Amino acid sequence: MNGNLLIKNAAEVVTCSGFEAKQGAAMNALHIITDGAVRITGGRIQQVGPTAEIDTGAITADDTVIDATGCCVLPGFVDPHTHFVFGGYRPEEFVQRLEGQSYMQIMQQGGGIARTVAATRAAGAEELYHAGRQRLDTLLANGVTTVEGKSGYGLDKETELKQLDVMARLQRDHPVDVVPTFLGAHAVLPEYKGREDDFIDFLIDDVLPAVVQNNRAKFCDVFCEAKVFSVAQSRRLLQAAQAAGLKARLHADEIVALGGAELAAELKAVSADHLLQVSDEGIRQMAAAGVVATLLPATAFNLREPFAPARKLIDNGCAVALATDLNPGSSFTASIPLLIALATLEMKMTIAETVTALTLNAAAAVGRAGDIGSLDPGKAGDLAILNFPSHHFLAYHLATNCVGRVIKNGRVVHGPPPKET
Amino acid sequence: MNGNLLIKNAAEVVTCSGFEAKQGAAMNALHIITDGAVRITGGRIQQVGPTAEIDTGAITADDTVIDATGCCVLPGFVDPHTHFVFGGYRPEEFVQRLEGQSYMQIMQQGGGIARTVAATRAAGAEELYHAGRQRLDTLLANGVTTVEGKSGYGLDKETELKQLDVMARLQRDHPVDVVPTFLGAHAVLPEYKGREDDFIDFLIDDVLPAVVQNNRAKFCDVFCEAKVFSVAQSRRLLQAAQAAGLKARLHADEIVALGGAELAAELKAVSADHLLQVSDEGIRQMAAAGVVATLLPATAFNLREPFAPARKLIDNGCAVALATDLNPGSSFTASIPLLIALATLEMKMTIAETVTALTLNAAAAVGRAGDIGSLDPGKAGDLAILNFPSHHFLAYHLATNCVGRVIKNGRVVHGPPPKET
Repeated sequence: MNGNLLIKNAAEVVTCSGFEAKQGAAMNALHIITDGAVRITGGRIQQVGPTAEIDTGAITADDTVIDATGCCVLPGFVDPHTHFVFGGYRPEEFVQRLEGQSYMQIMQQGGGIARTVAATRAAGAEELYHAGRQRLDTLLANGVTTVEGKSGYGLDKETELKQLDVMARLQRDHPVDVVPTFLGAHAVLPEYKGREDDFIDFLIDDVLPAVVQNNRAKFCDVFCEAKVFSVAQSRRLLQAAQAAGLKARLHADEIVALGGAELAAELKAVSADHLLQVSDEGIRQMAAAGVVATLLPATAFNLREPFAPARKLIDNGCAVALATDLNPGSSFTASIPLLIALATLEMKMTIAETVTALTLNAAAAVGRAGDIGSLDPGKAGDLAILNFPSHHFLAYHLATNCVGRVIKNGRVVHGPPPKET
Repeated sequence: MNGNLLIKNAAEVVTCSGFEAKQGAAMNALHIITDGAVRITGGRIQQVGPTAEIDTGAITADDTVIDATGCCVLPGFVDPHTHFVFGGYRPEEFVQRLEGQSYMQIMQQGGGIARTVAATRAAGAEELYHAGRQRLDTLLANGVTTVEGKSGYGLDKETELKQLDVMARLQRDHPVDVVPTFLGAHAVLPEYKGREDDFIDFLIDDVLPAVVQNNRAKFCDVFCEAKVFSVAQSRRLLQAAQAAGLKARLHADEIVALGGAELAAELKAVSADHLLQVSDEGIRQMAAAGVVATLLPATAFNLREPFAPARKLIDNGCAVALATDLNPGSSFTASIPLLIALATLEMKMTIAETVTALTLNAAAAVGRAGDIGSLDPGKAGDLAILNFPSHHFLAYHLATNCVGRVIKNGRVVHGPPPKET
């Protein structure tokens, strides 16, 4: 496969057309072409339109042609918030939660993030690589072509860099694109309790320069939450990161309305994530500043928390994205169909809003809306092809993966290989 | 592959050992063997135990050996309540429900079952076969090795038989075993409104003999519900079916507590299904009569109904099974992981109870607990192999399919082909 691909006769091509996040009511605009086609040349989208109008003159015997009769074609999904590189698993904590213990109780007994930090420090890079690769395979089978991945299970310089270096290797080796985020400020270990400012100093002085030096991360993230990092500490770290050339994003207002959304707006962060407790003022400021609200409904579902106010965010003009939050504790899932089920049934998003939240707005949430997230000429040839004729099946085929083939840069990277012309 | 298979070195073999449904607290008994092995000869289970204790002397070069290091091995799942053979789809009704319309409102506008009846009557057997085949493939990928399938989208003699004949053909052609159920009493079409007894007469006199004649069904089912078929009408049909040699099962107490559970106990039905509104007396009688309570949480989730009282049913000694209810209206899903997520997080079942409900108790709900549903010598060699080391991952890897390989009668029918010895 040379990255030249023609997909034709699709029952629906859902372009999600656009080059920046769609805010509010605009999230319902999907731009659907019936009996549609997509032509990809050298891995980039060349032409999108009705099959009858596509220029097929330049197709050679080396090019790939897919007859998508009865299928729906969409942009590949983007998962803009994961912690997919980690050591160890914590299934016993899922059992403890079923037995009635809270996430915080489990953390206080030495479980939670601290357990994964110990396992990730102990794991070799090779082990992290192979586990991360398996998780990327599962996401790919769900139609995901770009994933954000965070460090944050090291909380020391060596392991934070080890996680980021594993992501760089996966970026080279695996068809799914990886957008790396430095999340050194993920948790406060016991030895730093009461000395959170010292830990922020350590991150800024010792770790951040090494992260930036080798272009190991695109983003800096922080867990801005009561009993973790304050708004002031979060601001200090993110401003230092921005000064060093990283973009900002943050875990905001998950458990209490601390003002993370407002901080995201102040810093012009690319995304603020979780937002279960976001204030009305935070919503207003995020909409005005164009900060993407990245919602993680699988986490809320798993932890029996209330869902983020998706309807309120959209109705007040925010751009909403959806993400798995794939991690070994609060949300060990790679299921895009679960996100769609929760977004539509629990959060009352329309199917169109949900598709926008998983494509163009998710691309915006990783700072790449100009390059991926929609089927516009010039963008990367990243697509998901459903085994069903309309995007409605994404929600209607409840929690069931509808993706038959995945295309990355014009090449079939999941599903049955197409016939060559 | 000759149906001789050795699976060895499994991190866990979960046998679910038993030959009849497990009631109440017994549902927590999974019988787990660490570093386990399963030896299958001629498609039937020969030996189950620690790898070190398995007799490997008789293995020949034609036999298949799978090294299951790091994997969990379970009985193949059984899906004991589906309507997987149908014509047409109804995605627009999912959208209407998101917009606030109820299932009953949609039905009154000509949607609902009547729409699928029209599409199924219009569909050719070939079309139904191929659509059914695709759905069995999806269930198989979820680890399902036996599925119950209902007629009930004909409501006339010709189409009811067409559905059952399609299932018979799929039973011959597809690795998933199909247990066929005659559900002629699925709905009351407008032409029979107020003449439900006449419709029951028609089913008993005209359709049932043809169903029985060619052994087209194992079960007779009826939608026993207010405004559909009364307890008296349901009793009359099921008794006629039992007299003709079919086993009884019924849709019971989904919307109101009509007494379907009590009727199931009276008739010694194999299973009563849905049970969202089951009465305390119905629970007591089902437990005493050994009727399996087959719960369909995806339907409740999809329709925003309350979940069936799984905890109460188990705590009062019932045997609970879980099923997808795969159908084009109230639950278009083939997701076993969704069932597991809803059973554990929403219905407060333990992971062990959930596994029993999907294996041995689901086998009992289709009258086959003596032959499938557990890894006991003499039973069919039907297994699911997880990509993870413990059955806890079924719940912990939230709503994500963990199944790597599926074995049917000792042959690998899904997942990577094993190396021959």
